[in-house]
Amino acid sequence: MKKNNRNHKKFKKKPAQPSAQKANTIPQRSRASLYGFHAVEQAWLNAQRHIDALYVTDAGLKSFEATLNQAHQAQLKRPEPQILDKNALEKTLPQGAVHQGLALVCPLIEDVSVQDFIIAAEHKPSMLVMLDQVTDPHNVGAILRSACVFGLNGVILQRKHAPLLDGVLAKTACGAVEHVPVAYETNLNRCIETLQDAGFFIFGLDERGGDLADLKTLPDKTVLVMGSEGPGLRRLIKENCDSLLRLPTEGKISSLNVSNAAAVTFYALKSLQKIKSL
Amino acid sequence: MKKNNRNHKKFKKKPAQPSAQKANTIPQRSRASLYGFHAVEQAWLNAQRHIDALYVTDAGLKSFEATLNQAHQAQLKRPEPQILDKNALEKTLPQGAVHQGLALVCPLIEDVSVQDFIIAAEHKPSMLVMLDQVTDPHNVGAILRSACVFGLNGVILQRKHAPLLDGVLAKTACGAVEHVPVAYETNLNRCIETLQDAGFFIFGLDERGGDLADLKTLPDKTVLVMGSEGPGLRRLIKENCDSLLRLPTEGKISSLNVSNAAAVTFYALKSLQKIKSL
Repeated sequence: MKKNNRNHKKFKKKPAQPSAQKANTIPQRSRASLYGFHAVEQAWLNAQRHIDALYVTDAGLKSFEATLNQAHQAQLKRPEPQILDKNALEKTLPQGAVHQGLALVCPLIEDVSVQDFIIAAEHKPSMLVMLDQVTDPHNVGAILRSACVFGLNGVILQRKHAPLLDGVLAKTACGAVEHVPVAYETNLNRCIETLQDAGFFIFGLDERGGDLADLKTLPDKTVLVMGSEGPGLRRLIKENCDSLLRLPTEGKISSLNVSNAAAVTFYALKSLQKIKSL
Repeated sequence: MKKNNRNHKKFKKKPAQPSAQKANTIPQRSRASLYGFHAVEQAWLNAQRHIDALYVTDAGLKSFEATLNQAHQAQLKRPEPQILDKNALEKTLPQGAVHQGLALVCPLIEDVSVQDFIIAAEHKPSMLVMLDQVTDPHNVGAILRSACVFGLNGVILQRKHAPLLDGVLAKTACGAVEHVPVAYETNLNRCIETLQDAGFFIFGLDERGGDLADLKTLPDKTVLVMGSEGPGLRRLIKENCDSLLRLPTEGKISSLNVSNAAAVTFYALKSLQKIKSL
């Protein structure tokens, strides 16, 4: 008798959970690869993207209405949003993901090759950033966001240990993965040589370099190479750069966070590019 | 008999944990307020600081040896480091704290008043940053770090909702809380008026402002006011600024992360200050 009572209790508990009442009836859901408003919004509006599913909470859907309309007007082929409760939506995501009520199931965005960057730079100025050993997805995402804001033409990552263009990286990039092409390269030193052969000038960011603020001109095709906080650029990479630059600092701490250092350098180099084109 | 067995098991379990073998014998430990190498290192070397205790793991102690020597040579009064195992050390910290084997027990560093900034600016140029509604400790910590790197003279936070100068903020600031004075103000609009009366020129960062790159001169005493991502500066704050500035952006995304925006603006304003002093 006691046993039955227990079972009865268990049975009652399940439908009492809000998730079971509000959740979509499809029992198997796919793993979502993008989440957070800006990451999902920019992917949804990217005509090159195929989208498999969009999971939303009620609040997420409300925040996304303008984006849905915009995609509709642009006649993008998009699936119907599936409304889930928060718990069900979170089951499609990594633990702790800051999703803002939006999760997107879609293939990874395609990466490009360095040859694509070289071809694109044939008839217009180009500025690329190469990250040596910067692997934290928050940092890479933030750098991608700044690269997009300042109009850089591409990002080069080392294939080994580099994060994928989804999840935390895409969330931190705030939609920039849709706009800034990324190339994964196996050997960064060989890649530097290839870019030099194609007329690119390679700046390395290093504390023993010349003051960034003293730079007065900028070649049309440039690459900025940045290392990780602490160790900085690897020796051979540093030796292969055409010139080293340092940020002008004056405080009792001399090292910026790597994404802040990237943003400052993008701004400074882009300012020079603009002066030239005036 | 069964009961006794259970108790026996429980009793046996405790000393089998590695923590109990390696841990310091003092049973009650205080809550640590600072953790992570740079935050703890800079606090340890700050002669103005009183330190109650330093908890270290074996690896943490090894990484800290040079700092211990430096403090010893400077004849700073410092307690003996207490070696703990990782678990015991983590019990003195918030869950998930990235401690790098170092945790420090000490009072909060003292904040200053805006009057202190005004007095300090009487005989030398001054650049301050005021954060309006920026409350995330990661962002405030990263901004404090950049403020230190670029040699700003102080940070002004709104008392309400502002994070304290410890924990995550101090970790992200990488030791900058020891070097950049912080003032907590109740009413930022009144604070702006006070600073204007003392001769400070107030720049607000806003997307409808003039291009930061077009700025050619800089007053000797300046305050940069920044709002949070998304909503930006509050209306009244914006109206009280002497001039609004925007970052020159050209990509498909126009908004930088707030700490990146701060770093770029500090760099640009400091470059102008240097040009003037040449």
